[in-house]
Amino acid sequence: MVRQEQQRAQSPGGIPQTVRLFTSPSDMAKEGTEIAEETEQMIDQKEPDNPVSAVVDSKEMRAVLLTGFGGLNKLKVTKKPMPEPQEGEVKIRVKACGLNFLDLMVRQGNIDNPPKTPFVPGFECSGIVESVGENTEGFEIGDRVMAFVNYSAWAEVVCTPLDFVYKIPDDMTFPEAAAFSMNFVAAYMMLFEVANLREGMSVLVHSAGGAVGQAVTQLCSTVPNVTVFGTASPFKHEAIQHSVTHLFDRNIDCVPEVKKISPDGVDIVLDCLCGENTGKGLSLLKPMGTYILYGSSNMVTGETKSFFSFAKSWWQVEKVNPIKLYEENKVIAGFSLLNLLFKQGGCSQVKTAVQKLLSLYNQKRIKPVVDSLWALEEVKEAMQRIHDRGNIGKLILDVEKSPTPLMANDSTETSEAGEEEEEQEGDNENKERMPFIQ
Amino acid sequence: MVRQEQQRAQSPGGIPQTVRLFTSPSDMAKEGTEIAEETEQMIDQKEPDNPVSAVVDSKEMRAVLLTGFGGLNKLKVTKKPMPEPQEGEVKIRVKACGLNFLDLMVRQGNIDNPPKTPFVPGFECSGIVESVGENTEGFEIGDRVMAFVNYSAWAEVVCTPLDFVYKIPDDMTFPEAAAFSMNFVAAYMMLFEVANLREGMSVLVHSAGGAVGQAVTQLCSTVPNVTVFGTASPFKHEAIQHSVTHLFDRNIDCVPEVKKISPDGVDIVLDCLCGENTGKGLSLLKPMGTYILYGSSNMVTGETKSFFSFAKSWWQVEKVNPIKLYEENKVIAGFSLLNLLFKQGGCSQVKTAVQKLLSLYNQKRIKPVVDSLWALEEVKEAMQRIHDRGNIGKLILDVEKSPTPLMANDSTETSEAGEEEEEQEGDNENKERMPFIQ
Repeated sequence: MVRQEQQRAQSPGGIPQTVRLFTSPSDMAKEGTEIAEETEQMIDQKEPDNPVSAVVDSKEMRAVLLTGFGGLNKLKVTKKPMPEPQEGEVKIRVKACGLNFLDLMVRQGNIDNPPKTPFVPGFECSGIVESVGENTEGFEIGDRVMAFVNYSAWAEVVCTPLDFVYKIPDDMTFPEAAAFSMNFVAAYMMLFEVANLREGMSVLVHSAGGAVGQAVTQLCSTVPNVTVFGTASPFKHEAIQHSVTHLFDRNIDCVPEVKKISPDGVDIVLDCLCGENTGKGLSLLKPMGTYILYGSSNMVTGETKSFFSFAKSWWQVEKVNPIKLYEENKVIAGFSLLNLLFKQGGCSQVKTAVQKLLSLYNQKRIKPVVDSLWALEEVKEAMQRIHDRGNIGKLILDVEKSPTPLMANDSTETSEAGEEEEEQEGDNENKERMPFIQ
Repeated sequence: MVRQEQQRAQSPGGIPQTVRLFTSPSDMAKEGTEIAEETEQMIDQKEPDNPVSAVVDSKEMRAVLLTGFGGLNKLKVTKKPMPEPQEGEVKIRVKACGLNFLDLMVRQGNIDNPPKTPFVPGFECSGIVESVGENTEGFEIGDRVMAFVNYSAWAEVVCTPLDFVYKIPDDMTFPEAAAFSMNFVAAYMMLFEVANLREGMSVLVHSAGGAVGQAVTQLCSTVPNVTVFGTASPFKHEAIQHSVTHLFDRNIDCVPEVKKISPDGVDIVLDCLCGENTGKGLSLLKPMGTYILYGSSNMVTGETKSFFSFAKSWWQVEKVNPIKLYEENKVIAGFSLLNLLFKQGGCSQVKTAVQKLLSLYNQKRIKPVVDSLWALEEVKEAMQRIHDRGNIGKLILDVEKSPTPLMANDSTETSEAGEEEEEQEGDNENKERMPFIQ
């Protein structure tokens, strides 16, 4: 996770660049600003600053580039060489990209084995098939699709293996499709494959107003008589209360509140937190109940210092004694869709889930909630909004949008801060925990 | 778990008895024999030794009594007052009782909060409803039933709450019914409720020749294209190979053998072992796979000394980091049917499972495998057989049987040892691990 020496990194254009890499978390915190400036200078020599001209050379495309790990100032829109599909790959003219909390962790380098900077972030997009490589039966130019991408989704054009590409229904918009893939698949697999949600069960979901949270509540509504307990910031309560049976302020300890209503606990706990909360989540389970950890948001407390927090929470997380699970008839699970897709060859399992989800969409039983649309050039503002928990549903990068905010709903709590996060860099430890929406 | 002082215990007949209880594992090992003799003398003063006369006073009934925790000599058949049903209870004239590996652990006192001795062991039986208490709608005198009992099943007559009683199909024999309840329910709930077994999956089950193992393999056969990996003693292989896709000698490490056949591992691991094997079991899981610990047989290594082994394995068992589960997309679960039924109010969940199982039975898709029938007076020999892993399928106490061995199959490996276990008391540490069949 910690790189130990200077390495020669190859830029996308083939020009070698010297990228000085971190040797330890403290080095990283100390040297962050210096590295950032150095990297920016190198990039700037080659490419003009944003906004990039809307007239795109067919050999180039616009993309969001992460120039180094750290704050919002490490993100910029730039031109990159046009990718071409290899064998088994589909080339997509991107219309919309999904923004996830995980992208904040990536930006900070707070993930295991991050790619070398600079690179284009983003794990999901929707768009139109522009060309196909060999052996891509089933896809044709002009197909409307959504896709998982192992980085590089935040661009005008993406090439990705056909196993990660799905045709979308005619009436599904591109922002809906980009809001659909990761969050609904994660919610579906957790509820129905890991936890086996059935009639009459109860579910606790944190960040019920987030994109995964909204997917979870919608999927719960497809099963008769499911009780949903949810936590969310108070200002979201009015907007989401129709989808949650019992809604709690995320700033209070929900354990006693849930037990007041359901003394036996709940059947399923979906936890995007970690550490001390694992024990709390387990304690809320009914016998035969399932606790699923799908993210660990207290890893992320702000900027580079959270690299420390990451290591800390890893070691401090409460371990679980299997014999206790045996005595209490409990199940504990972890779920990472990205690992399943890109490290563990889980495409066929994901495909099954997508098919079932598209069927539910066609029956109008689920519909992705889009919080807001942002131009590529507004990626910093969008990230700040997800960081501030301002969103209800999904933040979308709309590739064809010009940089003027266009809200999909009327939330009055939108952060317009943009660069504000930068100024708080020294104050990371005091920040609130954040959800990990993947 | 360790009782700390002398207590006054009330005998079933209402005569107070002084039962000296263990103060520590070493005390227990040291004083086991002495306590046993003391307890036996007290019992013998009141009741004649077995065999008890077949002519039963209607105010009394025959039952197997555990006179103290320890070896086989702590078991005897005796007369007990006839129980009468309380409100909500059903009185059953017992025809057959199930014998589980758990009963060996109970005999040794190797369970959490065991009841005070003397008591009648046994958790399941089948028979005919002889009378009912108030508020027992749905049951009538003469109904053929199977039942879960919170101890006291090994008797001619049992009273148990109606929530634990199920009518059985006309063509299900009483031994089949007694072999059905615990093992098939455990297998069903693990495969279909905890692990969500579906078409095309793979399952590893240890002790595939045991009663739970046979229930697991039969239930796997009700789902298309399920691959079953199983371990069993070599002499059982011929008899059970039709039910297991890949069968391994239980004395070898099956991990590399399974990986040779399926390099990615399996979807479900059912583990009746514990401790070091938890890590092995987890390592065999495919992404999205489920490991279920349903017993911990290396707790039981023989007689009283295993109390030590129990504590040891409790503390030594490998704990699981939830973040590792998250990264690897794995699920770990524990399952204890007895805790679910008798401590955690899980009757309604169990009822759903029983209904589905009876439907499968009626469709002739599953059929309990009965290893052998034993008279109550032969309970020691039966326990020795399960201890020696001699059984294929279920050992049944046939209440109406006279004490002559009657084998349900022709296995040549039957242990006729009976009291042999006693003589090995000093050699517990070298004994093989045993399955925990509940």
